[in-house]
Amino acid sequence: MTASSLPQVRRIAINTGGGDAPGLNAVIRAATLAALHEGWEVLGIRRGYMGLLEGDVDGEPGVFPLTANAVRGITHLGGTILGTTTRGNPFGLEVRQPDGTWGRVDRSDEIVQRCRELEIDALIAIGGDGSLNIAHALYQKGLPVIGVPKTIDNDLRATDVTFGFQTAVEVATDAIGRLHSTAEAHQRVMVVQLMGRHTGWIALQSGLAGGADVILIPEIPYHLDRIVEKVRERDRSRRRFSIIVVAEGARSADGEASFADASGRYGGIADRLAAEIGAATGKETRSLVLGHIQRGGEPIAYDRSLALRFGAAAVRCIREGSLGTMVALQGNDIRAVPLGDAVHDLKRVPPDSELVTTARQLGVSFGD
Amino acid sequence: MTASSLPQVRRIAINTGGGDAPGLNAVIRAATLAALHEGWEVLGIRRGYMGLLEGDVDGEPGVFPLTANAVRGITHLGGTILGTTTRGNPFGLEVRQPDGTWGRVDRSDEIVQRCRELEIDALIAIGGDGSLNIAHALYQKGLPVIGVPKTIDNDLRATDVTFGFQTAVEVATDAIGRLHSTAEAHQRVMVVQLMGRHTGWIALQSGLAGGADVILIPEIPYHLDRIVEKVRERDRSRRRFSIIVVAEGARSADGEASFADASGRYGGIADRLAAEIGAATGKETRSLVLGHIQRGGEPIAYDRSLALRFGAAAVRCIREGSLGTMVALQGNDIRAVPLGDAVHDLKRVPPDSELVTTARQLGVSFGD
Amino acid sequence: MTASSLPQVRRIAINTGGGDAPGLNAVIRAATLAALHEGWEVLGIRRGYMGLLEGDVDGEPGVFPLTANAVRGITHLGGTILGTTTRGNPFGLEVRQPDGTWGRVDRSDEIVQRCRELEIDALIAIGGDGSLNIAHALYQKGLPVIGVPKTIDNDLRATDVTFGFQTAVEVATDAIGRLHSTAEAHQRVMVVQLMGRHTGWIALQSGLAGGADVILIPEIPYHLDRIVEKVRERDRSRRRFSIIVVAEGARSADGEASFADASGRYGGIADRLAAEIGAATGKETRSLVLGHIQRGGEPIAYDRSLALRFGAAAVRCIREGSLGTMVALQGNDIRAVPLGDAVHDLKRVPPDSELVTTARQLGVSFGD
Amino acid sequence: MTASSLPQVRRIAINTGGGDAPGLNAVIRAATLAALHEGWEVLGIRRGYMGLLEGDVDGEPGVFPLTANAVRGITHLGGTILGTTTRGNPFGLEVRQPDGTWGRVDRSDEIVQRCRELEIDALIAIGGDGSLNIAHALYQKGLPVIGVPKTIDNDLRATDVTFGFQTAVEVATDAIGRLHSTAEAHQRVMVVQLMGRHTGWIALQSGLAGGADVILIPEIPYHLDRIVEKVRERDRSRRRFSIIVVAEGARSADGEASFADASGRYGGIADRLAAEIGAATGKETRSLVLGHIQRGGEPIAYDRSLALRFGAAAVRCIREGSLGTMVALQGNDIRAVPLGDAVHDLKRVPPDSELVTTARQLGVSFGD
Repeated sequence: MTASSLPQVRRIAINTGGGDAPGLNAVIRAATLAALHEGWEVLGIRRGYMGLLEGDVDGEPGVFPLTANAVRGITHLGGTILGTTTRGNPFGLEVRQPDGTWGRVDRSDEIVQRCRELEIDALIAIGGDGSLNIAHALYQKGLPVIGVPKTIDNDLRATDVTFGFQTAVEVATDAIGRLHSTAEAHQRVMVVQLMGRHTGWIALQSGLAGGADVILIPEIPYHLDRIVEKVRERDRSRRRFSIIVVAEGARSADGEASFADASGRYGGIADRLAAEIGAATGKETRSLVLGHIQRGGEPIAYDRSLALRFGAAAVRCIREGSLGTMVALQGNDIRAVPLGDAVHDLKRVPPDSELVTTARQLGVSFGD
Repeated sequence: MTASSLPQVRRIAINTGGGDAPGLNAVIRAATLAALHEGWEVLGIRRGYMGLLEGDVDGEPGVFPLTANAVRGITHLGGTILGTTTRGNPFGLEVRQPDGTWGRVDRSDEIVQRCRELEIDALIAIGGDGSLNIAHALYQKGLPVIGVPKTIDNDLRATDVTFGFQTAVEVATDAIGRLHSTAEAHQRVMVVQLMGRHTGWIALQSGLAGGADVILIPEIPYHLDRIVEKVRERDRSRRRFSIIVVAEGARSADGEASFADASGRYGGIADRLAAEIGAATGKETRSLVLGHIQRGGEPIAYDRSLALRFGAAAVRCIREGSLGTMVALQGNDIRAVPLGDAVHDLKRVPPDSELVTTARQLGVSFGD
Repeated sequence: MTASSLPQVRRIAINTGGGDAPGLNAVIRAATLAALHEGWEVLGIRRGYMGLLEGDVDGEPGVFPLTANAVRGITHLGGTILGTTTRGNPFGLEVRQPDGTWGRVDRSDEIVQRCRELEIDALIAIGGDGSLNIAHALYQKGLPVIGVPKTIDNDLRATDVTFGFQTAVEVATDAIGRLHSTAEAHQRVMVVQLMGRHTGWIALQSGLAGGADVILIPEIPYHLDRIVEKVRERDRSRRRFSIIVVAEGARSADGEASFADASGRYGGIADRLAAEIGAATGKETRSLVLGHIQRGGEPIAYDRSLALRFGAAAVRCIREGSLGTMVALQGNDIRAVPLGDAVHDLKRVPPDSELVTTARQLGVSFGD
Repeated sequence: MTASSLPQVRRIAINTGGGDAPGLNAVIRAATLAALHEGWEVLGIRRGYMGLLEGDVDGEPGVFPLTANAVRGITHLGGTILGTTTRGNPFGLEVRQPDGTWGRVDRSDEIVQRCRELEIDALIAIGGDGSLNIAHALYQKGLPVIGVPKTIDNDLRATDVTFGFQTAVEVATDAIGRLHSTAEAHQRVMVVQLMGRHTGWIALQSGLAGGADVILIPEIPYHLDRIVEKVRERDRSRRRFSIIVVAEGARSADGEASFADASGRYGGIADRLAAEIGAATGKETRSLVLGHIQRGGEPIAYDRSLALRFGAAAVRCIREGSLGTMVALQGNDIRAVPLGDAVHDLKRVPPDSELVTTARQLGVSFGD
């Protein structure tokens, strides 16, 4: 496509979907400033697609202009100034029925229509696996979309890394470090549960950096007795404390179900493991579920840069007519990859990968 | 007592007891260096009083010389190089019986005797309420003791503040800050449980610094409906998220028991409150139990200074023959107070105190 | 004065003067929310007293309403949303003359007059030594004033500590810690210059917490040869690196002038000391001037709490008619002290104080 | 090469050379543990090659066994437990002559010989550009060497990133953030000088993440008037403060020499720029030289992981007989690249690179 044939862009929009991640505001700021730099108008859409469907969200206009002032000084802020929701799939949007219950309805056509009415030439959709799937489906319905990958879990195949991930690893590594000294002082076993329902990237990277003795991830089912053996082996060599890092989606090889409860919450694995290990070893054992502090708060510099680069790259994609794509980091380069490829499947930790091998070389047990 | 009548000090010993707190190693370092500076020898005792009672603790000598090298570079380290234990009361020491069960036995005379054999002229006992009580009792049995107050909870009456407390507040405030952005992005209620079984100092100071909307402490029983009302009031004024900070020992005014389970663990109040508030408000609600990261890890500069000052002051007390005392911060001064007074009762948060009043002026609800 | 005789307060104003300090925004937020809670209106004055004297400051109204929204989420922000200036003394205000030069003029009467026109019932003046002197003089001219003490340097006598100080100590201690490992790896002498023109509190507290080998403060003139001797002594005992912390206002006992240059800037002492020590010892020596990062950026939790307490206490003072005072921390209490007493003289580090003694006990040299 | 043909490895050695970088100890730990895991012995060499040439370094043996205990708990420590030196080139080693002056002498043959005597089967040389060149030359003389790339500056072409770099960026970004609030409060121009004599990676990444208004790097010569224009433009749009980040090796396009002084130190560019900008704009201007805190202290989790991976990979290289190589990160993979290629030339910031383009899209000026 030659530059001359590119459609004239005049107005773009930005939204954020799914769980928040440190760096969302940096993407919003970069995309807004870069678009204003092109001479375009920028609209912010509140709470995923809700702002397009409702004139008013939480007493504020659902769609509003993003100016240079509106994005000033937000690079380092956690959360998202646009708001987000995990109930935002327009293809199966949860809506409260007249009778008060929640039901699902497909409002995707409305969204495409509404974007046309607003004369939005391109939508920058910042989101994870789910949000990017929605973005791809909207693209196939005719909405010009650019995706920006966002997931704490770092489980998107098309990009080397997603923003927010290294911040989560930093927070988790810091917490593991704090547990170290108290574990050693008391000769305890500490079990710390990190995010990662389907993949173990946060647990693996934080466990490695934080000096965990055992790392349990969904990709490598564990045997309780191997964990117990590791704790005992350390005791025998006079290292009378152990740090066990467990991804929330880790599972036993012995055929048990995962620890998610009926409502999809994963509160339990650390507590249960701690009880089991305490019983088996006779050692004082404590557990910690690190929870939402992994995803809230200020992004580290690495994630600020990456998020800013993604936001600016999305604008370059729009300028160059490269729609239906997602921006991605590959090595030191930012590339545009087809949205359809990007959301194909999860990037799991290969059990024989270099990271896992490195951990094993350092004496880390995966309970297998 | 004139200087000439002071007993000649030649050798002192140091131990740490109870839960660990950031700054223990700084006290140990300061006391050791200051004592070596006086020309004294310094012995470290492992794991409370265990090192005096057992020749060998964990395969290492129970008592060993603390040299300048041994305390090098430890000011900023969490934990304690001496080890600690919460099962260390020599007046009712838990010991494993021949039949494998645990029983209690009074070995305090042995401790006094052992210190005489080792020609220990003074013992610096670093510990909290429990450990200082033991120290006082040993003093009454003739052991020359100086206490150094240690409690995360800051609930000792005789000192303005204890080391470790401000680090716990810093860690908790940082966590509350991280929850803020994710709460706002998702319009959630976040309930975060902090340490404080009997007193609310950590919750109060962190909640204030972190901008909590509700702070629940043991000293001010709460009513669930007042909390719910606060959340709703914020919703009405378009602040559609709320941060609720709860001390683990907080309790309902409606006659319920505390949330400690049979084993004395306080896992439950945040989860339960979150469920109750979620049910009452219909809002997404999440909980977090911050746990041991409040007490592990590096002390902030404030606590390093305070701990170093306590350690050096303890040595001055010994030099001046001021035994049976505890070092304490009062205003900007370090003073020695009688051990007997120091451990009399807990310093609780007065419900009409200036800190509580300040929080109320800022719109914080205590659920009362 | 009985409550009934108190003048009815309807409107207060807040300003910030002098150098910024972490916590200024927390004071502003607390005072604003507490005043709104009383039912009062609150005005913000831009850039010290400039906003009163000029209708327009930097294109914005010089005086504007501080609402709950205006102070939302600013507790942890560095700087001041009101702006500040070090050229703001209304009794000798620097003003640009028609000919382009700067001259001084007394506009204090205008300020009192303007406050009356604006029906300001009380002014909360947040500032350091200089600003509080101005506030006191304005009070004597009839302006109802409450002072809130602000100085990084912690050199106000009437309060145990000022907000911002512990943050500066934390930042400085962190920097000293970072220098430690590079100094040790290279066996270097590192000289780090901290804030403190007239007093050595930051250098002393940070040097103590950071493990400095030498601490040089204005209150204890140093001899170069004593510093050199300390470095050599460490070398002999195989500690082949040294950390020297120097307050910008430190001075040699050998009769030299201070290192402030003609413009009052203190850039030079660290560089010069490093050169002198390097020449005398033959060791690799490096210097660092830590500068403004000590006073910018987020306050630590300690300073957030203290600043919030000061802000709320100022409002209580106004409510109770306690004007012409300054809020102060004494022990764990917030008190109101007469402004006149508060600004009397600087709180210097007594050379025989407990902090200095503690440092000496740990082997720190003061170069004396 | 088949496994059977691999020489039997029994003993390896590790050294660190050049300036320190956060992560050195993590490499040492990982290489040591991984080698012990293979059943090999590990020797540590003190201060680059000095420990091989001198039996005794600083009163300690020049070569000593690295055991599991020796590398315990050092992952997060800055510096290097082996010591380092910037005067360590064995091909032109600086030695003090009998007359007291320093001269150069080639002792590389001695090093190769000494390694044979010690039966060292492979040397892991951790260092930057200079150290890796030396390692390559020693390899060509027959010493089996594996290089591990270390440079704060991130200017090695063969690896996507070096450990220590992201920590430097984090520290610098944090400092820039702190300057922001004080700059804004006072409406000042702040000039902050970061490391980077030959390349601008730290300045570029930190400036981007920290929200700098102007970034000056060696690869893009600047014009003073463009910087001044940027400051004025911000003033006109009521952003009355500016943050200018400058790499120490940045240079004016107007033909001036670099700011290194005769001794190779780069103290001056920030001070000089601040003076020039202050004079040209009439604004209050301050400078800060961030210095060694960028390279000292704890590595962030990213650098800990990367360093551990490099250390473990070096051991795999030795096991597989892949000598004369350097470990490198490429995308998410660790690869071995020929040492000869690795040290060919510096990786400079391409003026038209995506990072520079991103910064320009956000409105950053490079002064060109």
